[in-house]
Amino acid sequence: MRYPNPNRLVRPLVRRLAPYTPGEQPKVKGLVKLNTNENPYPPSPRVLRIVRAAVDGRLRLYPNPTADMLRDKLARFYGCSADNIIVGNGSDELLEMAVRCFVEPMPWTESLRAGFCRHTGHVSSVSRHIVQYFTPSYSLYPVLADMHGAVKNPVPLTSDFTLPSVTELLRGKIWDFNAALSFITTPNAPTGRGYPTSVLEALCRVQRGVVVLDEAYAEFANENALSLALRYPHVIVSRTFSKAYSLCFQRVGYFIGHPDLVHALHKIRDSYNVNGLGQLAAEATLDDIAYYRDKFAKIIRTRTALSQQLTALGFQVVPSQTNFVFAKPPQPAQAQHCATRNKRGQLRDAKDWFNRLHEHKILIRWFDQPVVRDYLRITVGTPAQARYLMQVIRQILA
Amino acid sequence: MRYPNPNRLVRPLVRRLAPYTPGEQPKVKGLVKLNTNENPYPPSPRVLRIVRAAVDGRLRLYPNPTADMLRDKLARFYGCSADNIIVGNGSDELLEMAVRCFVEPMPWTESLRAGFCRHTGHVSSVSRHIVQYFTPSYSLYPVLADMHGAVKNPVPLTSDFTLPSVTELLRGKIWDFNAALSFITTPNAPTGRGYPTSVLEALCRVQRGVVVLDEAYAEFANENALSLALRYPHVIVSRTFSKAYSLCFQRVGYFIGHPDLVHALHKIRDSYNVNGLGQLAAEATLDDIAYYRDKFAKIIRTRTALSQQLTALGFQVVPSQTNFVFAKPPQPAQAQHCATRNKRGQLRDAKDWFNRLHEHKILIRWFDQPVVRDYLRITVGTPAQARYLMQVIRQILA
Repeated sequence: MRYPNPNRLVRPLVRRLAPYTPGEQPKVKGLVKLNTNENPYPPSPRVLRIVRAAVDGRLRLYPNPTADMLRDKLARFYGCSADNIIVGNGSDELLEMAVRCFVEPMPWTESLRAGFCRHTGHVSSVSRHIVQYFTPSYSLYPVLADMHGAVKNPVPLTSDFTLPSVTELLRGKIWDFNAALSFITTPNAPTGRGYPTSVLEALCRVQRGVVVLDEAYAEFANENALSLALRYPHVIVSRTFSKAYSLCFQRVGYFIGHPDLVHALHKIRDSYNVNGLGQLAAEATLDDIAYYRDKFAKIIRTRTALSQQLTALGFQVVPSQTNFVFAKPPQPAQAQHCATRNKRGQLRDAKDWFNRLHEHKILIRWFDQPVVRDYLRITVGTPAQARYLMQVIRQILA
Repeated sequence: MRYPNPNRLVRPLVRRLAPYTPGEQPKVKGLVKLNTNENPYPPSPRVLRIVRAAVDGRLRLYPNPTADMLRDKLARFYGCSADNIIVGNGSDELLEMAVRCFVEPMPWTESLRAGFCRHTGHVSSVSRHIVQYFTPSYSLYPVLADMHGAVKNPVPLTSDFTLPSVTELLRGKIWDFNAALSFITTPNAPTGRGYPTSVLEALCRVQRGVVVLDEAYAEFANENALSLALRYPHVIVSRTFSKAYSLCFQRVGYFIGHPDLVHALHKIRDSYNVNGLGQLAAEATLDDIAYYRDKFAKIIRTRTALSQQLTALGFQVVPSQTNFVFAKPPQPAQAQHCATRNKRGQLRDAKDWFNRLHEHKILIRWFDQPVVRDYLRITVGTPAQARYLMQVIRQILA
């Protein structure tokens, strides 16, 4: 008997899928890792002590399925109810659940056709199938839409990466005010720009579907939009313990929003989605906020210095409200010296910079995508890492 | 401006969903917890030491996205390739991914109708939409099917909970040999019965869709079906570190199967789905297998003693190949004494037993579902827990 080709057992939608590419997790030691926006400082000594003390016989037991202790602490922290909160295995899990909870997939016969993108035009009345987001923003959103068989609606930011106003969106006729789900990364990645809460609120007020404000970097910004999640029934704010709270390893993120939306998300949540040590680490973090606020201030100081030094060398640096900077290397028009040409005499582009920095054991992120391919995304590390980075950059330019 | 009722923003499919109910995780101390099939013994001292030593600054970093070290170790352990393996945030995550990877959801217009079950008859040619499983088995499968908008095909086991043969399945005309995805829990939960590999193989040989052999309890059984996953391109075996390896808290499970199926699953995997300490704990576990084999033997000895003692008191105990027993309390015909009646003189049923044991601080599992509602599922604990359980049962019967 012959068995089916296993590839034929996979859904066409999945076969066609181009998966999300996370930043490289290098196996070699000694690299200066400025590519995945991790916090350069460790968790607080108190957090480490509490997690270490919990590594005992309790590992044999299932964790609390709904992360009740953590949700209670978060609720006190934000002055809301635990019913406003769902905790995820990192906020990525919750972003994916939002797509499955609020967006209707396209029927599989439709999904066999190419051109899921709304702009191809052959799908009408699709708002309930739409996952909408600005470009450039977090590159996971289109992948989540494709995985689900949803229709993507990418909408360009303005040329300087600010958020278009409602008037501009109306004029542009691309933004769908009825989209089932809209993701807004704020502050944005990979650009680093912060969006004023007033602008976000104006957009939320005219939006009819669910809006997820993805605030993975909010702790490094001047303001955040958490209040909108507690004021508007269709607005959710996404947060994470990964970046600001140095817990990437432990996978803990959360959504805050209307209890009805949160209740629906709980229904499709994996029963024990958040590991027990991650829950404990996050709880201990909330009891030690002063330690982390001190680190946020340090990172912001390093970011300011780094931005100024890069600008002085001819880089165009987008103003950052995050723990990374997004910078366009000096262009020939601005820097006429031969250092902007590579060995074969061609103009040095952002990819060249990425490679040259890699040769000097500095890992940053470069995205081979329209609009952003001229830029480098550089995580703000420690002052010593920033000094080393600038030293190497000067060396390359020299 | 009035905002939409947030409930209307949730997909009808999700609104209708009855979520999976995990066993109670009690907050009060001092309960004898025999309800969620956790291992009564802690992880090995070596595993605890290694995890504790890893709780340091590295928590700020993302874990390895594909659990490479763990997959390499598992591959050596089973004599296969790392390409045969995908690691999940518990095996539950992978079961859910299998549904999304191999089963087409029904179009949303269809899904608005009641009667997703294949037996209602108004959906034809649905094999590509079918999630198939035996009943009773792991109660998560129908929930996963409903979440995805798939068509459920529950097929009854024989009256003594053994697996029907291929001939019987053909005769029964319910089993779909073309179903997109079939889940077989082996050894089965909640019945505890083991299925011979030869019987499983005969079924796999005639099955055209993907078969997931869910071996969450395989370490407590006389045989397992892992070889089938390496022999047949459409067969996947699911395993977990939760139960046998005392790591429920840390959420690590894995699938073994054909590289093409595994590759497809990786495409829809959350980038950093397995927390770092969980990966390290699982790796350390594989280096300390002797410790765990000793514990399996202990649990099997306690299981044998417990089964015998329950049988002696008139319980009907299903032969168990797991770390729990499934037992029907003495019925009036077998035990005529008044103890089988409750306070109001009604016959004591399994639910009464569940409640009476709870009063004595013993937590077990009772399922309010056809066929199984006459039974109690009792996790095999330590010998001391089993002695206390038997003492309370004798007291209730006296």
